[in-house]
Amino acid sequence: MTTDEAGRTGNAGKAGLAALTQPLAPLLSQLDAFLEEESAAFEPEVREMVRYAFAHSGKRLRPILVFYSGWGAPEKAADLVKAAAIVEMVHLATLVHDDILDDASLRHGAPTLVEKYGAHASVLVGDAMFSQALCLASEFGTTEVCRVVARATRRVCAGEIGQTFARGDDHLSREKYFRVIELKTAELFRASCRLGAYAAGYGEAFAGAADAYGMHLGTAYQLYDDVADLVGDEKKIGKTLGTDLASGKFTLPLLLLIENLPEEARRGELARLAGMGPAELAGILQEGTVMERVHGAFRAQIDAARSALVPFPEIPGAAPLCGLADYVGGLLEG
Amino acid sequence: MTTDEAGRTGNAGKAGLAALTQPLAPLLSQLDAFLEEESAAFEPEVREMVRYAFAHSGKRLRPILVFYSGWGAPEKAADLVKAAAIVEMVHLATLVHDDILDDASLRHGAPTLVEKYGAHASVLVGDAMFSQALCLASEFGTTEVCRVVARATRRVCAGEIGQTFARGDDHLSREKYFRVIELKTAELFRASCRLGAYAAGYGEAFAGAADAYGMHLGTAYQLYDDVADLVGDEKKIGKTLGTDLASGKFTLPLLLLIENLPEEARRGELARLAGMGPAELAGILQEGTVMERVHGAFRAQIDAARSALVPFPEIPGAAPLCGLADYVGGLLEG
Repeated sequence: MTTDEAGRTGNAGKAGLAALTQPLAPLLSQLDAFLEEESAAFEPEVREMVRYAFAHSGKRLRPILVFYSGWGAPEKAADLVKAAAIVEMVHLATLVHDDILDDASLRHGAPTLVEKYGAHASVLVGDAMFSQALCLASEFGTTEVCRVVARATRRVCAGEIGQTFARGDDHLSREKYFRVIELKTAELFRASCRLGAYAAGYGEAFAGAADAYGMHLGTAYQLYDDVADLVGDEKKIGKTLGTDLASGKFTLPLLLLIENLPEEARRGELARLAGMGPAELAGILQEGTVMERVHGAFRAQIDAARSALVPFPEIPGAAPLCGLADYVGGLLEG
Repeated sequence: MTTDEAGRTGNAGKAGLAALTQPLAPLLSQLDAFLEEESAAFEPEVREMVRYAFAHSGKRLRPILVFYSGWGAPEKAADLVKAAAIVEMVHLATLVHDDILDDASLRHGAPTLVEKYGAHASVLVGDAMFSQALCLASEFGTTEVCRVVARATRRVCAGEIGQTFARGDDHLSREKYFRVIELKTAELFRASCRLGAYAAGYGEAFAGAADAYGMHLGTAYQLYDDVADLVGDEKKIGKTLGTDLASGKFTLPLLLLIENLPEEARRGELARLAGMGPAELAGILQEGTVMERVHGAFRAQIDAARSALVPFPEIPGAAPLCGLADYVGGLLEG
């Protein structure tokens, strides 16, 4: 349901990310060690399951955002690692709950928690992970970290519910679509950036800019994730579009295909599209201006992410964050 | 799964509680108004569901504990109401998740959230309620409220998982049983008492005592809840015991029936009990010392709750809290 971060970007993309995050290696391994230790803070009843959830995690995108938003403050490394652990735990908890709801059996190539321990335990383990993230947040000197994390978590949940109810809604507008992806994905990206800036002590002006950067980068990332299967060979595109139509799932391309129609004509057009074969669907997508407009929307988010950082050339993280925006920007072109 | 607070105590019990909490009426109605306003803080995607969950709530036991633990500090009413809203929201969130796991269709006489909106939305609404409780916690001047609430929530989840795995465990000891009920029920009682004392500014010594009081009262309350259907007429007792045996659910009486047997004999004894009819089962329970020992364990918790408050006669809430302990103490006798 949320972003699938499992190696979709291929080897070139992976190598690009590895080069970009190479300076973070010491912090990322401190994070691994911290999460391993942190699993001991859970009651024995849940410890094994939490350890399992921590061990099968993805690309650490949100910790990377924390670390670069707080880059250049080595004396704050412990706080940055703690903030990174908090956002990663919230992210992993949402994945645990998503996997229950999607009845998913595999994630990152390993059995999901729900597959291994059942839905009952998984709902509660996700809850316990949320709670422990907030326990860690309460260890900071002020209530700021609690506030940012709790608010972001509430908004992520609202986004996922919004997505659930958006399925099959033929009045879905571009505004509603963007609101869902901003809440369900971008919200935790922006919280990560804000907390990195906060933990490093960079002040409210840069924290606000980092927040805006994270919001746009997260939106771009989810846009990419939604359309990644609509780029490449015709057969795959047509098949993906057909599956999305059949399940009532809206992606930006589908929305653009119907958004200029009067409301009463949309249902008919969706039914007509659903009746088409894969080749015909792919043709419609590639001939019109739809994918061009999707790319335009995507590039606008990447540009807005970069622009947010322009007033802060003196902040050490601004350059690597721009590099990260370029990396995400390249995902849809490849 | 957690305490069923739906009118089990009958009219006499209800009247007793109403008299005890009559002085709290203004605070309780402020709490209702606060929760109603608070539902507007949620994103529009979840607001209707949250309002539904808030409207179908129970006896407000945890808010009552907050209010009496902070009794006598009218200038702190706003903080006490906020603390009460926090613990009630955490409690309601756990009920939302419990009802999904138990596939429950009714609670307090109304359709559950999962019955009305489905499991998918309910998992996320529960998450959003947890998150908003922590948002409120972050509005206090220090991180203490966040810390207490997040820790309690984590421990409640651990208790519920412990309970899940305790089902059918014929090596279940009295220690394991008490640990489960302390975590799943008493933990939020003690957090409620601690937060009331904190919000009223009564200092750490009384906060610690209120915490201990809450722990013992919560344990007694869950003991009562576990055995309430094992008191009264023979037919009901035998039937309840039979159902518990068949589903592998342990209550203290069942545990006491087998705890003195060598481990290898327990499974056989459980099978023998499961093979009995309701009348025979009720007879075994009533003839032996089991129910006497259950009452003893229950009274010990009530006494410990009262004792915790003895050193604080000057705290205005100590007397009504003792009254509340007497009320709970009377539940099992009735």
